[in-house]
Amino acid sequence: MTKWKRANPSGTRDVLFEECTLKEEIEQRLRRVFISRGYEEVRTPTIEFYDVFSFRNRPIDEEKMYKFFDHHGRILVLRPDMTIPIARVVGSTMMKPPLKLTYSGNIFRANKSMTGKYNELTQTGIEIIGVDNLRAEIECIVSAITALQDVGLTQFKIEIGQVKLYKSIVKKLSLTEEDEAILREYIENKSYTGLSQFLEEKKFDQNDETVQLLQRLPRLFGGLDVIDEAESLAANAEMKEAIQRVRDIYETVERLGYGHYISVDLGMIQNLDYYTGVIFRGYAHEVGDEILSGGRYDELMEHFGESLPATGLALEVDQIVRVLKEQNPPSKEEPTEVLIHYSLETIEEAERLRALYIKEGVKTELSMMSSLEETFSFARANKVAAVVDTSGGKLKEYAWKEKWELEKEGETSCVTFKSR
Amino acid sequence: MTKWKRANPSGTRDVLFEECTLKEEIEQRLRRVFISRGYEEVRTPTIEFYDVFSFRNRPIDEEKMYKFFDHHGRILVLRPDMTIPIARVVGSTMMKPPLKLTYSGNIFRANKSMTGKYNELTQTGIEIIGVDNLRAEIECIVSAITALQDVGLTQFKIEIGQVKLYKSIVKKLSLTEEDEAILREYIENKSYTGLSQFLEEKKFDQNDETVQLLQRLPRLFGGLDVIDEAESLAANAEMKEAIQRVRDIYETVERLGYGHYISVDLGMIQNLDYYTGVIFRGYAHEVGDEILSGGRYDELMEHFGESLPATGLALEVDQIVRVLKEQNPPSKEEPTEVLIHYSLETIEEAERLRALYIKEGVKTELSMMSSLEETFSFARANKVAAVVDTSGGKLKEYAWKEKWELEKEGETSCVTFKSR
Repeated sequence: MTKWKRANPSGTRDVLFEECTLKEEIEQRLRRVFISRGYEEVRTPTIEFYDVFSFRNRPIDEEKMYKFFDHHGRILVLRPDMTIPIARVVGSTMMKPPLKLTYSGNIFRANKSMTGKYNELTQTGIEIIGVDNLRAEIECIVSAITALQDVGLTQFKIEIGQVKLYKSIVKKLSLTEEDEAILREYIENKSYTGLSQFLEEKKFDQNDETVQLLQRLPRLFGGLDVIDEAESLAANAEMKEAIQRVRDIYETVERLGYGHYISVDLGMIQNLDYYTGVIFRGYAHEVGDEILSGGRYDELMEHFGESLPATGLALEVDQIVRVLKEQNPPSKEEPTEVLIHYSLETIEEAERLRALYIKEGVKTELSMMSSLEETFSFARANKVAAVVDTSGGKLKEYAWKEKWELEKEGETSCVTFKSR
Repeated sequence: MTKWKRANPSGTRDVLFEECTLKEEIEQRLRRVFISRGYEEVRTPTIEFYDVFSFRNRPIDEEKMYKFFDHHGRILVLRPDMTIPIARVVGSTMMKPPLKLTYSGNIFRANKSMTGKYNELTQTGIEIIGVDNLRAEIECIVSAITALQDVGLTQFKIEIGQVKLYKSIVKKLSLTEEDEAILREYIENKSYTGLSQFLEEKKFDQNDETVQLLQRLPRLFGGLDVIDEAESLAANAEMKEAIQRVRDIYETVERLGYGHYISVDLGMIQNLDYYTGVIFRGYAHEVGDEILSGGRYDELMEHFGESLPATGLALEVDQIVRVLKEQNPPSKEEPTEVLIHYSLETIEEAERLRALYIKEGVKTELSMMSSLEETFSFARANKVAAVVDTSGGKLKEYAWKEKWELEKEGETSCVTFKSR
């Protein structure tokens, strides 16, 4: 036997039985919510040309892509993301914006082994292409909330950030690219002391309101008060506008009665080169990893044709399944209640009976065993309560009876089928 | 712009809008039929170790597999098949047979470009593991018929073959491996003259009944008469048993009232080294490619642990979609009937209205345009019949009126929204 015959590649896994059906059903419900809100479905291939993902500011690291060759030596990748292929489709088919699109499928990330991260992830998501006003962000957030509610998630939070604010601050302070990279680390890791030391070293004026805003940035998460504070420190129209956008989105979503599902995090900066405005990240109490992410990416579409504003988000189906399993472990599949034994001559009668039972809501299967004894032992092993034998001249029903018998070594449980 | 930025790798394609939703819904219906018949769901990763597929008698050609490396230099493949990964799962988790499993997902074949073949195929299938009696074959065929009926396919045929018969003939005639390979070509291509010449060249006794059976093999397709003829020429118990199995399956499925969906083809020999008994192939009148394939593969499981008899089949979802599209082209998605325009202050009212309309079965969306004029032009472009404006103090409903105006150059159609 070869070495890796029975193993899964690292970061992949088999999903079995109840968990598999739970995951499939969740994916279907998310899909249906998006379709019912007017999104149209798109599926792109699992395999794409590497070139599709090789532009400046792409959100995926080079080394995270699975790469291989086609018959002509061109580089292929397993899609590491779903938004970029959809941008390719929209760009190459010249669809007429505005568009509301939805997708569902697996993406691939070649993580180093032993990180515990999954390399194949299921995402169900939406993209709104051709809308620059904030109704796009609102529609994304509301769609996600509705979808998460629909699958039964109750405890979750969507955080709203704004990369434009951070970019404006960096511009105002005329930071070099190197300094910005260091700064970004501190803010992303919410390292308050690191950030303070950095600002001191750089000899920034601590009384300057932009410096103060930057210093406060990692702490600016919460509700409207956070927006108020940021606004009071905003030094120019650009910053004010960026903050106003977050306020308008927050207040509008709140107006819909979804206020408890959202919060603001102005210190959230992710894929800074890819996103161009408001960004989203969703968490559930039960798991640390994000259950959704997205934002405005007005600069992507120009790589594939026309320049078009765009906003979108992806729900992480695997994480949502994890949360739902924590909240409410999936019940074992209902076991089969009746097993119908048949001879080849009586299959018609067996099938007729099966249909009758099913009609009455009784989970029924035909036995695939050739002898009644084998059917009994299959039923015992699989906890099927009743066996109906159609193989004789007339129907015989057997029910599962437990009896306790005293044996030499002690008591053992013994289960037999009794005709009833 | 790089060269392949806007292209799809050969053999892959984007599936959009109505076709995408049709395909998704068909996949879901097939899934549900199998679940309702007691099959349990399994999903395996898209990526597998090459070793999983590298055994003698594997049904997939080496060069048809997409191969690449993991971080440790081990060879990975995109799964070219779903049955073999499921055998891996069953073997490594020591699940207790008999098992009825169902899967759905994409498989990958690296076909040469320009063959017109798709390299990414969606299969929904079933595997029955641990049952050697013919009830497994019957359950497979009946499950497939029920599933195809459920998605609305009416004109299809499942052909039943038997590789054991061919293997017995080859054994009886003591053919060399080389000769067998030539023979196989003639039979697979139903080349009667090629076959006759071959038998003459080899100086086989034309009066020998096994030689006669072999000569007739490519013509042995049809109904029970074909089985009768084969039986009359069967020279030994092995051949007789192989034919009897086909007869029993045929007659039992017929007994269920599904006789018009099945036929016999004893000249069908596919993946001869992989299958060990009865094989299936399904066709619809509308498309040439097969819509299902499968059979008994009693020698696969031993590569992954315990030796277990097994039978299964895969439905080719892409082909089924093609047939259904030919039979009945998918109707355009119902267009949105009402578009609700809102200002940020009136979103609650807009959302309340949307829910009301939806409740009444009217497909309704919120407009994402900031001005009423933009909402009008979006509605016009997308054939939305009515716009409701919630942005003023009170609701205003606009309906789409066509009017014909005489202009200098002639008559032109002009469409405007009128308050009603």
